[in-house]
Amino acid sequence: KIQNWNKNESFLMDSNKQSNSHEEGYDKVTWTTDVETHPPWLRFHLGISRWELYNRKDPNLAQLTHYLATQHILGSVQKKGGTQLKLLISFPNYGQALLKPMKQTRHAETDVNLFYFSDFERHNAEIAAFHLDRLLGFNRIPPVVGRLINVTTEIKEITTDRRLSKTFFTSPAGNVCFYGQCEYYCSVEHPVCGQPHMLEVSLATMLPDLTIAPRRSWRSPWRRSYSRTKLAQWEKDPAYCDTVKQTPPYNQGTRLVDLIDMAVLDFLMSNMDRHHYETFEQFGNNTFLLHLDNGRAFGRHSQDEPSILAPLQQCCRIRRSTFLRLRLLSLPDFRLSDIMRESLTQDPLSRVAPLLSEPHLSALDRRLAKVLQVVQTCQEKHDDVIYNDIEGHDQGPRSAVTA
Amino acid sequence: KIQNWNKNESFLMDSNKQSNSHEEGYDKVTWTTDVETHPPWLRFHLGISRWELYNRKDPNLAQLTHYLATQHILGSVQKKGGTQLKLLISFPNYGQALLKPMKQTRHAETDVNLFYFSDFERHNAEIAAFHLDRLLGFNRIPPVVGRLINVTTEIKEITTDRRLSKTFFTSPAGNVCFYGQCEYYCSVEHPVCGQPHMLEVSLATMLPDLTIAPRRSWRSPWRRSYSRTKLAQWEKDPAYCDTVKQTPPYNQGTRLVDLIDMAVLDFLMSNMDRHHYETFEQFGNNTFLLHLDNGRAFGRHSQDEPSILAPLQQCCRIRRSTFLRLRLLSLPDFRLSDIMRESLTQDPLSRVAPLLSEPHLSALDRRLAKVLQVVQTCQEKHDDVIYNDIEGHDQGPRSAVTA
Repeated sequence: KIQNWNKNESFLMDSNKQSNSHEEGYDKVTWTTDVETHPPWLRFHLGISRWELYNRKDPNLAQLTHYLATQHILGSVQKKGGTQLKLLISFPNYGQALLKPMKQTRHAETDVNLFYFSDFERHNAEIAAFHLDRLLGFNRIPPVVGRLINVTTEIKEITTDRRLSKTFFTSPAGNVCFYGQCEYYCSVEHPVCGQPHMLEVSLATMLPDLTIAPRRSWRSPWRRSYSRTKLAQWEKDPAYCDTVKQTPPYNQGTRLVDLIDMAVLDFLMSNMDRHHYETFEQFGNNTFLLHLDNGRAFGRHSQDEPSILAPLQQCCRIRRSTFLRLRLLSLPDFRLSDIMRESLTQDPLSRVAPLLSEPHLSALDRRLAKVLQVVQTCQEKHDDVIYNDIEGHDQGPRSAVTA
Repeated sequence: KIQNWNKNESFLMDSNKQSNSHEEGYDKVTWTTDVETHPPWLRFHLGISRWELYNRKDPNLAQLTHYLATQHILGSVQKKGGTQLKLLISFPNYGQALLKPMKQTRHAETDVNLFYFSDFERHNAEIAAFHLDRLLGFNRIPPVVGRLINVTTEIKEITTDRRLSKTFFTSPAGNVCFYGQCEYYCSVEHPVCGQPHMLEVSLATMLPDLTIAPRRSWRSPWRRSYSRTKLAQWEKDPAYCDTVKQTPPYNQGTRLVDLIDMAVLDFLMSNMDRHHYETFEQFGNNTFLLHLDNGRAFGRHSQDEPSILAPLQQCCRIRRSTFLRLRLLSLPDFRLSDIMRESLTQDPLSRVAPLLSEPHLSALDRRLAKVLQVVQTCQEKHDDVIYNDIEGHDQGPRSAVTA
């Protein structure tokens, strides 16, 4: 079933070249002509390594987001899976993106009486999560870009998806709306509407097709109960991490600190919906974790959710590279909120309105301080809090201090 | 099936007494002792006449709303019928009320992309509609009062309704919430929540049981299509009223001008959801129209909906008493917004927050001017616009000018 595949460091490229690129830095890599003529999405696929989805210095990153933001849209159909409406967008040269539509204004906070599993997905959360993950040095979220699309000419008139097209209608205000077919919020009571045609959306780069790069889905040990009444085991047992630490694959390699990286990311953006994570099957257990599906992040700025940090708090372990990066981003000159604000201005939708409102940016700084506080409390009790992934760990290309 | 019933002017009372009360005014009626000991809800039932639900001077009106607002709640179950959640509340002495919960803040305007048939019901709309109908001199809405109830002790802990009780839960914010079982918005994504226990609700007096006072439901000739795409006949045919005028029961008596009264009320409060109206079967066709179910009024203050006035505009006919009342309420000393603001302060919930925000009150004045403008335009083209229901029409007790 899987052809041309072996345990290389990257997809479709020989492992030598990939490891060279790690040592010399991406800007020094000489691409062969045929690679240069590849469309940006294919170059992104080719650049995926065992350790990260992309190299943040790769000039293809800007070309990829530019491609998604500007290429002519050839097709739009509903994407199956998940519970809320999303579309699969096709571009020339076989490029594809996952579209999530704007469903609420930037300033709307999630209703305090809604559970994490009832919250809307937000297009700007997908965009901001990509930027945050990159600034944290993780590079584990496929690039996402914002775009204003015309729902009439770029979805309604070109879709071949009958189940989607029959949900289009003109709203009382004269806007072109649709709602699709899905498990939650796909009804005329929750329409997605242009103004009257133009709609803000997020477009996430698609990963290589599952037939050539199969992925494994892992249930998070700190998964929530997804119940109105039940608590998960980790919510009741303070020693829960002791069990996790002894359970494969968390009992060796970097899997546990990778989970904790993910918890840090999720706490900063207040994402409570991380029930699963994925890895590329090809790379076995010794590889990075994909941080997919971040639409429920950035729902509330006025409150923090300490339980998201449970993996860090209960395991008292964190990568040195992550810790150093967090410390750097807490300094006045490198303040996370400032760097996020700056980074988000590069997205085309920032011309319409800032992708994160100021209260959301401030919340990042407040939460970052809390993460560092948890690490400090851990260090007061334990010796082995900092997991040294820098010295003597040449498997990983990340270097938090030279960013 | 129907016992002790004949074509009297009121229920359960002899017609002489009822007609006396019309002539002398309610305050002069001497109630017999057994009537005085009746609970307010029963006195309300006894006071229903062929021409109106209550006499606005009847001291029982204040006693009835006080009763609903303060009596101990004995039972709470879901009320069947309709599409959204409502409860049937029981009081001592067999009193009952229809409860509609607060679902959104006073200032929330209905999303411009929602259709009239997808809009939430509002508890404050039910309360304000009762006051407006009374101020217009119609007296065709059963009295409604606001109340702060404890969802835990006054619903959850006392309900015998298993389908209701199993939808209770504690929200992430620690509030006690429920959602019930119904066609629309009865899901965990649309919870009704106390803070943490107290919830604003409207309580509408129940009409006499259908077994002793059966009602007839009439489809409104100006009913909307309840479709995203279709128009109703009246929306396409400017001469639509010519047909209605020739169709029983609109071809005789006051039925047509009664419908137009209802259209005026609905336009003022921007209620697009008047698909049916009811009458008491007992009174035949020569009786007033019940203005039931006003929860979708007052959804938007920034816009008016001219199509609600179609019956007035297309028929060019209005009761003299209604016209005089509207003119009175357009004068600076009797301005509708001022009188509504004053009237609503009598509701207990006005202590929590004004039941209608100022933009909604201003909209009333703006819309009233538009109604008078439509009447004037009619008068410029037709002679028979004003239907004289005052001189020589002794069937009706209303007197708009002596209010």
